Amino acid sequence: MRILLDGMGGDNAPQETVKGAVLASKEISDQIVIIGDREQIEKELSNYKYDPEKIEIRHASEVITGEDSPVKSIRRKKDSSLVVGLEMLKEGEGDVLLSAGNTGAFMAGGTLILGTIPGVERPAIATIYPVIGKEASILVDAGANAECRAVNLLEFATMGTVYMQKVIGRPNPSVGLVNIGTEEGKGNSLTKETFQLLSKSRLKFVGNVEAREIPYGVCDVLVCDGFTGNIVLKLTEGMAFSIMNFVKRKFTEGVVAKLGATMLLGKIKDIKAEFDYSEYGAAPILGVRAPLLKMHGSSKAKAVKNAIIKGIPYAKEDVIGIISREMEKVAESLEDEENADIE
Amino acid sequence: MRILLDGMGGDNAPQETVKGAVLASKEISDQIVIIGDREQIEKELSNYKYDPEKIEIRHASEVITGEDSPVKSIRRKKDSSLVVGLEMLKEGEGDVLLSAGNTGAFMAGGTLILGTIPGVERPAIATIYPVIGKEASILVDAGANAECRAVNLLEFATMGTVYMQKVIGRPNPSVGLVNIGTEEGKGNSLTKETFQLLSKSRLKFVGNVEAREIPYGVCDVLVCDGFTGNIVLKLTEGMAFSIMNFVKRKFTEGVVAKLGATMLLGKIKDIKAEFDYSEYGAAPILGVRAPLLKMHGSSKAKAVKNAIIKGIPYAKEDVIGIISREMEKVAESLEDEENADIE
Repeated sequence: MRILLDGMGGDNAPQETVKGAVLASKEISDQIVIIGDREQIEKELSNYKYDPEKIEIRHASEVITGEDSPVKSIRRKKDSSLVVGLEMLKEGEGDVLLSAGNTGAFMAGGTLILGTIPGVERPAIATIYPVIGKEASILVDAGANAECRAVNLLEFATMGTVYMQKVIGRPNPSVGLVNIGTEEGKGNSLTKETFQLLSKSRLKFVGNVEAREIPYGVCDVLVCDGFTGNIVLKLTEGMAFSIMNFVKRKFTEGVVAKLGATMLLGKIKDIKAEFDYSEYGAAPILGVRAPLLKMHGSSKAKAVKNAIIKGIPYAKEDVIGIISREMEKVAESLEDEENADIE
Repeated sequence: MRILLDGMGGDNAPQETVKGAVLASKEISDQIVIIGDREQIEKELSNYKYDPEKIEIRHASEVITGEDSPVKSIRRKKDSSLVVGLEMLKEGEGDVLLSAGNTGAFMAGGTLILGTIPGVERPAIATIYPVIGKEASILVDAGANAECRAVNLLEFATMGTVYMQKVIGRPNPSVGLVNIGTEEGKGNSLTKETFQLLSKSRLKFVGNVEAREIPYGVCDVLVCDGFTGNIVLKLTEGMAFSIMNFVKRKFTEGVVAKLGATMLLGKIKDIKAEFDYSEYGAAPILGVRAPLLKMHGSSKAKAVKNAIIKGIPYAKEDVIGIISREMEKVAESLEDEENADIE
């Protein structure tokens, strides 16, 4: 397998990206192609010992930054590391592409250059949702589509299920709909209609999930529109940080507390580790015709390494092929239903 | 002032409700009317010493339960404690009504029996949003309206601002729009349109607020549709509980940790107190023609007491009158703008 890595996207590129690639290369037998400014990448690589058969550079002279307009930058910066990576993927010069750069440009570029899987109207981002003391859920859509129709949520649920099975390795994943009440009939028009579609689908739909239940990991795949997904994800992050900061402040007030906190240091580290996103790998963009993985913009070497290693099954397990076949079945069942409605 | 209290609504009625009323009566000079089954309420009251001039019972033979359909129960259970309370408020036999019962029925009853303030299309629930280590925000709408138009969110922001000023006592409250990005132009069509309306309003609009910032208390009034509000509120609750449970579990693993935790007991209590909803009083239903306060369904005596005491300014400060006048100004400015658009 050839793993394509955008060497220039993200806050800590190319330093941490290159370091992450070197670390990953020591644990896998696949080849990594780092795309970007050859001179800069060579300079970074010179800091490490690595197997030159496993790491290769593909020069690209431009960079799409976080400030660039997604669609415009894809059209104009033809020699950017991101566009070159997408073109390589399209031409079969690689099997999966990872980037920590501009999310909008990655989404737009994936759609424009690679195209979407037939039956998928809207590609989505699926993010690992860390669950304290339990296995993580995934959340689709995590923010790519602020406005959705019910069929889009059915697409997200279908793609999320396949990803959970094949990449994260959980057989028969359960699907929950993020909603404001557990009973059928609760919610807004989008969730009400989605409930009906999911109920009739071949997925393991477990019903509505209230936001209060999300942190407890009540299902494997959490489905929602991108607006709601972004709110859920960012609020979770904000709550975790604000509570842990407050705990830290409280635990360092006064001598007795400080002593007590010293005795709990190991435990406090355990708690922090639960929220360490760098352990979880990257977020797949689901619905485009090739495997794309979005890394967090501020990824450090360890996060890049984990993203590379944990992302391999996305390409190896033919996730795109399986999603394509599942989407055909979804399209057939939706057609059957439309016909039934007409009769 | 006469404070009307639904003696039968909620999980712990009438026991905790009556006890809360007795506790409150010792701290205020106003009169409390407990509405509900006279026999049961008298029995509860007989457990306490109280000033009979300050606590009165109004008999009502029926109860609206949590399972009752909101609109139907208001129409059919004419002698329920909730409907009797609303009718008393309408007839001027009281100044404010508190209930821990069926939220939907309380909203529907308020709208049907009391009517809405002119210019308010959708009454909303405003909930205190606890901010760790800082003054609380309020969140409007917290779940009453799963589907909203931009003008509804302008209504919520206006009413929330008045409530924050007059009842919570914060001068010149800032208003933030819950959204999935801080820049103008981010979000779904609802938040984009709302951003424009709030920008042109007379409110102290501070722009979009990302969910990550909410726990830090970045503004006084958080505005959103009821679907989003419910997600924010319940996820906050779920995160707080799941993190604190995990911390507790970790801190009682092993002898050293247990000893450390003992030394931190006081601090752990401080942290828990930050999430103690019973300290914050009840949630106002804003937009109906008289002051209604919704208590948490599982309120205990202390929460009832706080709800009564902290709810007094809602009636005393003529919040309804001020909201009515503000809504007139909002209507005028919206009309001006429509005319300007036509010209």
